[in-house]
Amino acid sequence: MNLLEYIDRHKEQHLDELRDLLRIPSVSTKSEHDGDIQRAANWIADKLRSIGLDAVEIIPTKRHPLVYGEWLRAPGQPTILFYGHYDVQPPEPLELWASPPFEPTIREGKLWARGVADDKGQVHIHLAALDSLMKVHGALPVNVKVIVEGEEEIGSENLYSYIRANKGKLKSDALLVSDTGMIAPGVPSISYGLRGLNYYQVEITAAEQDLHSGVFGGAAPNPLQVLADLFARLHDKDGRVAVPGFYRDVRPVAAAERRALRVLPWSEKEFRRFVGAPALTGEKGYSTLERLWCRPTLELNGMWGGYTGQGAKTVIPAKAYAKFSTRLVPNQDPKKIAGLVEKQVRRLLPKCVTCKFETLSQGKPWLAPYEHPIFQAAQRALSEGFGRKAVFIREGGSIPFVTEVHDLLGVPCVLMGFGLPDENAHAPNEHLLLEHYFGGIRSVGRFYEEIAALAGGNGGRRKRG
Amino acid sequence: MNLLEYIDRHKEQHLDELRDLLRIPSVSTKSEHDGDIQRAANWIADKLRSIGLDAVEIIPTKRHPLVYGEWLRAPGQPTILFYGHYDVQPPEPLELWASPPFEPTIREGKLWARGVADDKGQVHIHLAALDSLMKVHGALPVNVKVIVEGEEEIGSENLYSYIRANKGKLKSDALLVSDTGMIAPGVPSISYGLRGLNYYQVEITAAEQDLHSGVFGGAAPNPLQVLADLFARLHDKDGRVAVPGFYRDVRPVAAAERRALRVLPWSEKEFRRFVGAPALTGEKGYSTLERLWCRPTLELNGMWGGYTGQGAKTVIPAKAYAKFSTRLVPNQDPKKIAGLVEKQVRRLLPKCVTCKFETLSQGKPWLAPYEHPIFQAAQRALSEGFGRKAVFIREGGSIPFVTEVHDLLGVPCVLMGFGLPDENAHAPNEHLLLEHYFGGIRSVGRFYEEIAALAGGNGGRRKRG
Repeated sequence: MNLLEYIDRHKEQHLDELRDLLRIPSVSTKSEHDGDIQRAANWIADKLRSIGLDAVEIIPTKRHPLVYGEWLRAPGQPTILFYGHYDVQPPEPLELWASPPFEPTIREGKLWARGVADDKGQVHIHLAALDSLMKVHGALPVNVKVIVEGEEEIGSENLYSYIRANKGKLKSDALLVSDTGMIAPGVPSISYGLRGLNYYQVEITAAEQDLHSGVFGGAAPNPLQVLADLFARLHDKDGRVAVPGFYRDVRPVAAAERRALRVLPWSEKEFRRFVGAPALTGEKGYSTLERLWCRPTLELNGMWGGYTGQGAKTVIPAKAYAKFSTRLVPNQDPKKIAGLVEKQVRRLLPKCVTCKFETLSQGKPWLAPYEHPIFQAAQRALSEGFGRKAVFIREGGSIPFVTEVHDLLGVPCVLMGFGLPDENAHAPNEHLLLEHYFGGIRSVGRFYEEIAALAGGNGGRRKRG
Repeated sequence: MNLLEYIDRHKEQHLDELRDLLRIPSVSTKSEHDGDIQRAANWIADKLRSIGLDAVEIIPTKRHPLVYGEWLRAPGQPTILFYGHYDVQPPEPLELWASPPFEPTIREGKLWARGVADDKGQVHIHLAALDSLMKVHGALPVNVKVIVEGEEEIGSENLYSYIRANKGKLKSDALLVSDTGMIAPGVPSISYGLRGLNYYQVEITAAEQDLHSGVFGGAAPNPLQVLADLFARLHDKDGRVAVPGFYRDVRPVAAAERRALRVLPWSEKEFRRFVGAPALTGEKGYSTLERLWCRPTLELNGMWGGYTGQGAKTVIPAKAYAKFSTRLVPNQDPKKIAGLVEKQVRRLLPKCVTCKFETLSQGKPWLAPYEHPIFQAAQRALSEGFGRKAVFIREGGSIPFVTEVHDLLGVPCVLMGFGLPDENAHAPNEHLLLEHYFGGIRSVGRFYEEIAALAGGNGGRRKRG
């Protein structure tokens, strides 16, 4: 029996197992779930052991544990480091879920549960693929290291320090991550670019206390008005970010890439329908996909101040706040951009207020050389796993892990994701297409075989079809 | 013993009585205080009876009761209708009070308690004045009607319907209100102008749900950005409200009034120090007092949307909200202005969002003819009560009651207030200067005597000094 036949015959078993994992409410941000986090880590470790991996361990950290396992019994073969996370976003608001978030339910060809897309379902794709390879071949075709963390949704701090301290242990020839998405249902996708992310917060202070808008209105400065004026001036009329120097280091979108993006099986109409707004917006001179993937942005993520209850309160607030972020693209430098943004914010503010400016986080953009043979191997594996030619895409989002670990380990990183943008990764009713889940297991299994074949090993088959 | 001597000898008694009233937490907005509201109404009614007023009644309404009493035993004399309110704002946040809000405390020559400035302390000034007049003269020098409501802080709805239905009963020659302030400590003031107030709320909807700012940022509309752009464009660079037609009906500030405002004992430096912001702002071409009292404004009172918690969330919210208001001056028409504002808001909004626009309330500006003899009588009474020449001022705030009742009854309205703008009427640590409280009782008492003298009656004395 070859690998794909094996996988197809064990669908129910894999699905049952995934449902077990999804039932554990491993919410990393709330300490009341610390026990669940531990259960999820144990579950992963047990599974790695049952697959047959060696040196499986649960590595305690200052907060949530890492799970590690390895297979280093394929001499002469490359080593692939797989990364995933077992922690999930909080499920609230619960009342918006059609079925309970931690009771996995199948409806409409989809599996519904918190974490099924981000990232426990995707992690399980890899576990099932490794298990299947082992069952079919009695061994893995290449060397494999697996690391699964429990803090992705809260910043991965302890993962980074662990990697920094254990570079030798984690040494590998390529990094494999499944935490991204596919461009459309049924279209397998490899992400070769991510935007970087800087996140900022401003606190504008005008008066020493809230003021009555009748008694003081017309002469006292209004920090909400100051925020409005500020953010209106941070974009120009063409939708460009109006921060001097912001675009200086941006690598232009190459003509070849523009052409490639245009022919992707991506429907702007579908995208617009999903967004549901009367129209889209964005920077002049670029297509929607270019705006989403290849161009930097400045985006308000939160703004608040004054009275926000029912009815009326005639107040001029003392303070107003905004959270905003810049998505960055190659070759923007996050540190440099943070400096430019702060400088411009301070330059634009009127003298009647003071401002506390914080850069909450900085993150680099990332772009992979997808001509590298490993990406071609991934494309072949995915095309076979899904029965449809895999495409190369970029993502507008940011995966701090990828850039951090790429920098720390200095190896190519293959992002092979099986989610869809409308699968509510961070919202109620998170789900994953069953077809993608099974296609994912097939593709990942075939990927390891392809790598072995690429390296001249005997674990895989040549590309067919 | 003349009136002022009597008042000066009964300071402690009046103060004790006021403290009793202030101990009742008559918060109108919260139903858990309905019993306290009833106790406060009873307290006022009992006091009116003990003064010797006739026909005292507690008038039930759909929510909080009105208290009424009258003295109509001065034939040939004019009738003055006094209005006040016994309800107060909620005291929260309690931890910011230096002494408990419902335990009246004397410190630094001030009485500290919720409601002492707005408006129970001012109501009690009138009750104490009427009591003193009755004690000294055995009668009131003019006819008096008293109405005290319990819903001023929540909109006075039931008061208005009562007045509409009882115009005959409330018929009078002038309305007397103490719910305003003095321009500076020790400077008695008569307010002859109030700004009107329209209050609005906008709800901007972009996408059908919150979106990930990485996946959708750059192409999906951001309602927070739309709000910022909108409100930035609702003022021009000179600080004028950028709504076509907004200033069309504004009566220019007359040269004589500008001169009068300039010589008022008002310190811009003190005002700036109280506000505490690095600088003031406002419409070009006008002084601070003109901006506060004579010019209309458009002011953001609240704005919110997106993530407002700790740290970062990379969201593009589906919706964003703003509450804002326009302060109006003669002869702006609230209904017309509401129409112009909505039209301009809709005109400025981009096509990528929809907008729900609500006008939550409308209120007319008000300006009194202060050459009228009753205002001159008030000026004489206040000058005598405080030992310092009373001045005519305007207020930037709005008192819906004044304009409503002025319209309903069609009589002059004398606003004789004893608060100060920094007395935290709607904030923690509300207080009233004791000197103003006693000066108020003296002035109000003398006012009734002046009115009687004006009308040729025998209840008062001629102006002295």
